[in-house]
Amino acid sequence: MSDRGRTFASDNWAGVHPEVMAAIVAANGAHVPAYGVDPVTEAADARFHEHFGSGAEVFLVFNGTGANVVGLQSLLRPFEAVICADSAHINVDECGAPERFLGSKLISVPTPDGKLTPELVEAVAGGVGDEHRVQPKVVSITQSTEVGTCYRVDEVAALANWAHGRGMWLHLDGARLSNACAALGVGLGAFGSEAGVDVLSFGGTKNGAMGAEAVVTFRPSEAAGLRYLRKQSMQLASKMRFTAAQFVALLTDDLWLRNATHANAMARRLADGVAAVDGVVLAYPVEANGVFVALPPAVTEALQAEFPFYVWDETTGVVRWMCSFDTTEEDVDAFVELVAEVMGELG
Amino acid sequence: MSDRGRTFASDNWAGVHPEVMAAIVAANGAHVPAYGVDPVTEAADARFHEHFGSGAEVFLVFNGTGANVVGLQSLLRPFEAVICADSAHINVDECGAPERFLGSKLISVPTPDGKLTPELVEAVAGGVGDEHRVQPKVVSITQSTEVGTCYRVDEVAALANWAHGRGMWLHLDGARLSNACAALGVGLGAFGSEAGVDVLSFGGTKNGAMGAEAVVTFRPSEAAGLRYLRKQSMQLASKMRFTAAQFVALLTDDLWLRNATHANAMARRLADGVAAVDGVVLAYPVEANGVFVALPPAVTEALQAEFPFYVWDETTGVVRWMCSFDTTEEDVDAFVELVAEVMGELG
Amino acid sequence: MSDRGRTFASDNWAGVHPEVMAAIVAANGAHVPAYGVDPVTEAADARFHEHFGSGAEVFLVFNGTGANVVGLQSLLRPFEAVICADSAHINVDECGAPERFLGSKLISVPTPDGKLTPELVEAVAGGVGDEHRVQPKVVSITQSTEVGTCYRVDEVAALANWAHGRGMWLHLDGARLSNACAALGVGLGAFGSEAGVDVLSFGGTKNGAMGAEAVVTFRPSEAAGLRYLRKQSMQLASKMRFTAAQFVALLTDDLWLRNATHANAMARRLADGVAAVDGVVLAYPVEANGVFVALPPAVTEALQAEFPFYVWDETTGVVRWMCSFDTTEEDVDAFVELVAEVMGELG
Amino acid sequence: MSDRGRTFASDNWAGVHPEVMAAIVAANGAHVPAYGVDPVTEAADARFHEHFGSGAEVFLVFNGTGANVVGLQSLLRPFEAVICADSAHINVDECGAPERFLGSKLISVPTPDGKLTPELVEAVAGGVGDEHRVQPKVVSITQSTEVGTCYRVDEVAALANWAHGRGMWLHLDGARLSNACAALGVGLGAFGSEAGVDVLSFGGTKNGAMGAEAVVTFRPSEAAGLRYLRKQSMQLASKMRFTAAQFVALLTDDLWLRNATHANAMARRLADGVAAVDGVVLAYPVEANGVFVALPPAVTEALQAEFPFYVWDETTGVVRWMCSFDTTEEDVDAFVELVAEVMGELG
Repeated sequence: MSDRGRTFASDNWAGVHPEVMAAIVAANGAHVPAYGVDPVTEAADARFHEHFGSGAEVFLVFNGTGANVVGLQSLLRPFEAVICADSAHINVDECGAPERFLGSKLISVPTPDGKLTPELVEAVAGGVGDEHRVQPKVVSITQSTEVGTCYRVDEVAALANWAHGRGMWLHLDGARLSNACAALGVGLGAFGSEAGVDVLSFGGTKNGAMGAEAVVTFRPSEAAGLRYLRKQSMQLASKMRFTAAQFVALLTDDLWLRNATHANAMARRLADGVAAVDGVVLAYPVEANGVFVALPPAVTEALQAEFPFYVWDETTGVVRWMCSFDTTEEDVDAFVELVAEVMGELG
Repeated sequence: MSDRGRTFASDNWAGVHPEVMAAIVAANGAHVPAYGVDPVTEAADARFHEHFGSGAEVFLVFNGTGANVVGLQSLLRPFEAVICADSAHINVDECGAPERFLGSKLISVPTPDGKLTPELVEAVAGGVGDEHRVQPKVVSITQSTEVGTCYRVDEVAALANWAHGRGMWLHLDGARLSNACAALGVGLGAFGSEAGVDVLSFGGTKNGAMGAEAVVTFRPSEAAGLRYLRKQSMQLASKMRFTAAQFVALLTDDLWLRNATHANAMARRLADGVAAVDGVVLAYPVEANGVFVALPPAVTEALQAEFPFYVWDETTGVVRWMCSFDTTEEDVDAFVELVAEVMGELG
Repeated sequence: MSDRGRTFASDNWAGVHPEVMAAIVAANGAHVPAYGVDPVTEAADARFHEHFGSGAEVFLVFNGTGANVVGLQSLLRPFEAVICADSAHINVDECGAPERFLGSKLISVPTPDGKLTPELVEAVAGGVGDEHRVQPKVVSITQSTEVGTCYRVDEVAALANWAHGRGMWLHLDGARLSNACAALGVGLGAFGSEAGVDVLSFGGTKNGAMGAEAVVTFRPSEAAGLRYLRKQSMQLASKMRFTAAQFVALLTDDLWLRNATHANAMARRLADGVAAVDGVVLAYPVEANGVFVALPPAVTEALQAEFPFYVWDETTGVVRWMCSFDTTEEDVDAFVELVAEVMGELG
Repeated sequence: MSDRGRTFASDNWAGVHPEVMAAIVAANGAHVPAYGVDPVTEAADARFHEHFGSGAEVFLVFNGTGANVVGLQSLLRPFEAVICADSAHINVDECGAPERFLGSKLISVPTPDGKLTPELVEAVAGGVGDEHRVQPKVVSITQSTEVGTCYRVDEVAALANWAHGRGMWLHLDGARLSNACAALGVGLGAFGSEAGVDVLSFGGTKNGAMGAEAVVTFRPSEAAGLRYLRKQSMQLASKMRFTAAQFVALLTDDLWLRNATHANAMARRLADGVAAVDGVVLAYPVEANGVFVALPPAVTEALQAEFPFYVWDETTGVVRWMCSFDTTEEDVDAFVELVAEVMGELG
């Protein structure tokens, strides 16, 4: 492994941003009520309301899988189904937690770029009214997507309109919502109720937090139930102030935006760098903090020995390189140089 | 609320012990693999093995409810039942998470002091072989109990023997295992495989951690499955090193023992202090860090205005006072004085 | 076993009433749509509406456990709890199906006679608004109860009032509703919406059917969901006409009432007969078709050799004798004689 | 609707074969123990053992969804997944019961003819050992398939070998196993343990029963658990003799084979007849009792007015025609004539 101390493996291989760590440390001290009835959680709530509006209700949880499952539970009964991209985190990377805890089927759809469209969703939303079929109830999208692309605001709104027109809901997995907003130049609230999103997961962990995610609902009628769903789903922290402090830090002085903008810029620099290398082709548009390229297996292996990263698709040889808040220009340049070198030898 | 900054409400109203916080801060820095394949988690594992033996397998999780549910899942199929005290955390305080995620019935037993015995368990373990009845499979005990009492090692071993003789398992909810071991003068491992415990939850949070619990299994055949159960149960942290660091700190230089011993001593001091107050009667033996007394409602209300705490049982007026690693002798003495004063006025 | 061909073991040891069997045979013949869109099911629906009113919606299912679980599912989310008698079929005899498929906790209450009261329910309905506790949402009663007693209409209405005043629902397990109505001299509809029941299970099987139960809901808003819940809960028959035919038969010419009245009368005759035997004491009032008496173990064993029946409570020696639509006066008299004889020898 | 009284809609639109009905009627009479401890169930068991070997254990259930879910439960933990054809009944037609009650993900695979192969399964069986992914554990096939094709014995054995080589199991949904065996000229046992099947659902309902399905396991170690799984899954009939009688009849004098052979022959006759009609093309090989053809929507609509049947695929216009034990040659010929006529007018 590179002695740089940083890799392109995942934005969750990074540590904690110093401003976040400082906030955690500062939250320590006197006794405060547990389970979120404390001043730090109150402060975090206030920050969330600034971004997502006063109608939003916020429930802090431990991790992204927890956020997705808790949020989706507030929208679904077990005979109702979730339509998602086949690359969706809920479909691939949560060890079946959604099926297990929602009791619901996920109807997954192949997509060219990780993004659903009304047309793609429409094609699998059949069986309505047929008691033998699960009943489509939620469209779940990821922003930015698992392959590093971003939905524009109008694209999300079109999905929300489609869903609402069918009596369905729109769920947004925003584990990297910050990266998408930074890329698109819009605020976090752009993907809230204005765009027609009903419930979202907002991720702090991959953007410099230690471990802090939030369920944000724009359906206040569900807020009462969500308190119990969070607890029953094993996602209620007792010393909540330390989770809350992380969000206070991220939502203060636009740290969320600074971190995301930086990570995106590093991905852009990396994409530009490797695109210039003969034989390297980008697999997806680079719109956030991830770069996907198809490589010969020998090249992948040689690169991984220096800089660990994941193979995204064994069959196509596509690999994934993620940038994080602490990726440096020097990291990128050194890696681009290595890619060029290895491609020259083994590509 | 008292301006002392500390209360007797709960050991999870306390913050983080400075040595734990320092370990968290020290774990920050370079990239490391996510999900527990990192040096800090390796170090935590090693500490656990020192205490619980090399045959133990450890799975770090977010919170106590998660630890209990994940651990129990490794022992049960849904038609099998858990026998527990009616005061058990899994029965009362987890919003039904066990029933929801195990699919199993909890068979709860009234106890005089929060402790199960083979006799109490035997009386509700019927219906074996009758397909209409849930099949008793796990006895779950809490150490120290929810009412501040402790099982002796031989008492746990007797329950384990009873269970194993029936083809059943023994689960131990050790959210406050440290307090029990400190009280009994035994090591943590005394309540592991030696005593016949099959799976336990070991709690860090209430003993000075920020939020760190562990499932420890002594059935290596279940360890493979537990990795998936943890992830599917939404209890797998990506930046695991920060959870692991908390346990490294607690298990270094016996911080777990220092914290627990102190909290227990404060409870002892509180119990002795209030026992001397006319009209105050202890509801349970004070064996760990909790003190339970029955108070007139007017006294409770007056005391709560100064020092928040919980009413344990509305019908009997029993209230709960918990001490934590940061409770001071001055806190205790001031509170005892207040109790005496208020009892004198309103008792 | 007695060569009489009939026992006092259970009303489901009996076969099928000839009128029910004739209806099943008559339903055979031409093709009809599957899954309940057929003329026989339409006819059954009409009969149900005559009894329970046009606002009732009916869903035929396979068995009593299925009826209870499907009906309860329409009233509950997993963090919400069901309050029931500790003797309730859902609590004791369904192998944990309610916990497994509702995901909910059952809060069981000891009762002197199998019957809940607002006072008994009130005492266990705590924790409302506390996210750590399951939230009481449904009171479930059994009519007639598992110990052969009956709720009066006003007793049910009082429970319904209590429940509705709390934003809760009343569920009635009517596996033997016919027996209760026959005993009380009221129609089946007396325990429907008039009495404030929200959902009930209506049992045909123990009253002369082959295997036919129904979920009847008085909350039309839930009817749409119930279609899917029934199918997803594996309770939708394809050749539904044969289930429906059983209910058509039971609800034609008051067969339900004739069968229940007869079974009740046989239980009365049995109770009167054995009450006259020295040393035999009835354990519960005999109000429907079950007789419960405490017997010395040796007597129980000797009787069972001739007439199989179940021990209800191992610790007290109480046994259960059930009468069914086909129990004869001669059966009863022979059994009473045997009881007297065996008690004389071994009692 | 045609006044013939029979349609090509589904084999479950048919009634009950007279020999089955006679067996049901004959099973009536004296009291027998409930829940399957009766002579008729014993007789059914014996017949099953004749076909499937003495090592098989049999659990009678209510319906096909129940049989599939109960059988699969004996093979899976919730983090383990089932691989099935995307047309599988468990994937499409059970309203999500498998996800709901197994807690497991179904990994569905497109197939050209409803049949899985080791190659198709291999392609989706990734992620083994990765805790973020569900772990493939069961391959589930349908015999005959939902599109009327049949696996040969060696094809099933190849899948079993593949599965067992991976530590996985093979499940067979035999709702129409009789039709497949009749078509292939093999006994029912050919698709049992000899072929490497671990658990199967054997369907009676679509082959002339009233409502009778069976879970047959070839893993005796799971038999104990299956008793509880059946009860907990709401699939245990109290008056079991009437379910058992249906199987006794089907497995006496080869009624199962006579019925299936006849239905298959009618499908063959129908296929041959319509294949001769200009413009009609068979969508799948006709190997059992189903015929699938693509039709212009106007033709479908005109035909349905006379003979109800289902559209199988809205997008391709493929419709499904099923033959049953009571389909007559006259029915087929009349329908072929109508198809020819309508195709001539509207095709």
